Amino acid sequence: MKKGCPYGTHRVIEPKGVLPQPALKIDNDMEIYDNEILIDVQTLNIDSASFTQIKEEAQGDIEKIKEIMKNIVATRGKHQNPVTGSGGMLIGTVEKIGPALEGKTDLKVGDKIATLVSLSLTPLRIDEFLETRKDIDQVDIKGKAILFQSGIYAVLPKDLPENLALSVLDVAGAPAQAAKLVKPGDYVVVIGGTGKSGMLCLYEAKKRVGVTGKVICVGSTDKSVARAKGANLADEYIKVDATDALALHDKVKELTNGRMADVTINCVNIPNTEMTSILSTKNEGLIYFFSMATSFTKAALGAEGVGKDVTMIVGNGYTKGHAEIALQIMRESETLRKIYEELYG
Amino acid sequence: MKKGCPYGTHRVIEPKGVLPQPALKIDNDMEIYDNEILIDVQTLNIDSASFTQIKEEAQGDIEKIKEIMKNIVATRGKHQNPVTGSGGMLIGTVEKIGPALEGKTDLKVGDKIATLVSLSLTPLRIDEFLETRKDIDQVDIKGKAILFQSGIYAVLPKDLPENLALSVLDVAGAPAQAAKLVKPGDYVVVIGGTGKSGMLCLYEAKKRVGVTGKVICVGSTDKSVARAKGANLADEYIKVDATDALALHDKVKELTNGRMADVTINCVNIPNTEMTSILSTKNEGLIYFFSMATSFTKAALGAEGVGKDVTMIVGNGYTKGHAEIALQIMRESETLRKIYEELYG
Ligand SMILES: NC(=O)c1ccc[n+]([C@@H]2O[C@H](COP(=O)([O-])OP(=O)(O)OC[C@H]3O[C@@H](n4cnc5c(N)ncnc54)[C@H](OP(=O)(O)O)[C@@H]3O)[C@@H](O)[C@H]2O)c1
Ligand SMILES: NC(=O)c1ccc[n+]([C@@H]2O[C@H](COP(=O)([O-])OP(=O)(O)OC[C@H]3O[C@@H](n4cnc5c(N)ncnc54)[C@H](OP(=O)(O)O)[C@@H]3O)[C@@H](O)[C@H]2O)c1
Repeated sequence: MKKGCPYGTHRVIEPKGVLPQPALKIDNDMEIYDNEILIDVQTLNIDSASFTQIKEEAQGDIEKIKEIMKNIVATRGKHQNPVTGSGGMLIGTVEKIGPALEGKTDLKVGDKIATLVSLSLTPLRIDEFLETRKDIDQVDIKGKAILFQSGIYAVLPKDLPENLALSVLDVAGAPAQAAKLVKPGDYVVVIGGTGKSGMLCLYEAKKRVGVTGKVICVGSTDKSVARAKGANLADEYIKVDATDALALHDKVKELTNGRMADVTINCVNIPNTEMTSILSTKNEGLIYFFSMATSFTKAALGAEGVGKDVTMIVGNGYTKGHAEIALQIMRESETLRKIYEELYG
Repeated sequence: MKKGCPYGTHRVIEPKGVLPQPALKIDNDMEIYDNEILIDVQTLNIDSASFTQIKEEAQGDIEKIKEIMKNIVATRGKHQNPVTGSGGMLIGTVEKIGPALEGKTDLKVGDKIATLVSLSLTPLRIDEFLETRKDIDQVDIKGKAILFQSGIYAVLPKDLPENLALSVLDVAGAPAQAAKLVKPGDYVVVIGGTGKSGMLCLYEAKKRVGVTGKVICVGSTDKSVARAKGANLADEYIKVDATDALALHDKVKELTNGRMADVTINCVNIPNTEMTSILSTKNEGLIYFFSMATSFTKAALGAEGVGKDVTMIVGNGYTKGHAEIALQIMRESETLRKIYEELYG
């Protein structure tokens, strides 16, 4: 059996020398190396920015969506959207564990797990499309995937429905970071606060700002804003198109009496909201870009362009304990759990 | 006289509603609005990532470089490289000050200034190319530019040569951030530490880490590494191709006895070094991406992909006092000043 690198570089076909995530093509042959785990895949949860792009390209047509997904995997050996660069995650059952991992992993063959590393670096083979739930970015398939030694995962909890856990785990980095970054007394703006990651961020932020702080939810549709309001997730709600930087700036200014946000969390799934985040944040404030549609140069040069001294953080999908924090919200909050079961369950 | 928005949105032609930086095309007519400043341009300092791309496209040919630059300005009304998204900055003389700025600015007509906002949002007209200094990304032109009300600038200091000041101010954000982020005892890796921004970062980092810390300089050519070594800018030097993530990881591991970097500063001008930065940094460490060639998704998904809990910061070109901090280095360090005069003076 062939020996593998912990990071999976042994599977990189092109360009040589890079890691699987930035690679253009990786080897998705399903014979495992000594330190790999083979997964029998059940469901793919495509990253929201990626699936939005695919749906647009397919003009909503399910067969076209499948074709695009198939092409991506055929070309790259992994489900990495060439336009957004992003992936998503999956759930499946452990089918084989490489002998080099013995004593190093607590996984057993037969365990149902969610991978917490992006599909954009996961060797994947799709054999058949079963069900496509296009409103929640989930696709049931027959297929296999490989988890590298350095890859992280969560064993699916027994007390939560699988699809619910999958949806929540997909965005687990966001609430965990919100919990870390928000301080008592902070004014927090969550752009895309009405979405899957956004509502979890609102919940964590609200727990932390206390009575002197303020949490502001930004969404773009009446329905989603009403949903967040109904669950009492924030102190204030704004319905606005998040690409309109000046419009949101003015509303945040009004609601914060000119102070602006101490912390802005960006959870949208559309491009061109960097300036909106920058203008909504106070000088020396902090912006957490969880959105995968964020452009590095637009953020860096946008802040400089208006002379704004803000700290801007790249939304690392992983932070210690993120899976536990996110799943715990579903146990803590009856209201949120109901919403997530309805939307993603 | 027409009234302008402080952020310059009145000059955005396409798409409507966005700010000048993300805009595809802005109006570069040189009749000023009431809150604008007209600059008689002397020199453009093109962003290193952008100029590297332009030089490659032109295969080093000066006439082709001029043609590409001309096309960029003709298409966008500003010098924003469509491939890298980045700009650069300029020096010139204040020619007109809009009446709405009276009492609000300390600039006078005739002042020689450097704009500290990116060329990627600055209305620019190029009338004639004078001299192209292609090794240091500088181009002398005849032309005009507009500074918006929110735009930041520095009056050129009398005690430093102009081109030197321009070069240093171009990357002023980097040393100022290094000064903020590095703590006593830290192990600091500066990737691209041999370059213009990199050497300034090494200098600030070395001041701060103290005797218990360690500063490691990474460059890719013998000459540039020897230069940094000659100036005693770091404690250790590594010559390696920064796109080779595993190679640098191994060297940093060796030099830090397995601890890895507390802070990694990325100052390269080439793509595909996100994973290199991530693997060189310890868990719960910090990465500052100053490089404009950074990809947001490669950073976010790369860190997640190897389960690395690192804080990644987008290199905002602006932070309070950045111009003063950067220029001060040229006064403090005889050695660095000599190097910068030789390279960029
Ligand atoms: N960093 C990571 O590791 C990581 C991991 C997973 C996902 N992500 C990214 O996180 C982002 C959000 O994911 P998600 O699953 O939470 O997405 P989601 O549930 O689809 O939510 C998208 C949000 O964006 C809002 N939005 C869309 N268009 C808008 C507009 N024009 N104006 C204002 N708001 C708008 C939506 O609000 P309305 O419904 O009110 O329009 C909604 O709140 C995506 O970009 C995804 O790629 C990142
Ligand atoms: N965030 C902002 O606001 C802002 C403002 C200005 C500039 N920037 C960005 O900052 C970056 C650096 O700018 P600069 O003016 O300092 O550039 P520079 O002087 O050209 O330096 C580039 C550095 O990258 C290194 N490098 C290039 N290829 C390499 C490789 N394959 N392996 C290892 N090192 C390599 C060079 O080292 P060797 O010479 O040893 O090869 C040098 O140290 C650029 O990406 C630029 O776009 C950002």
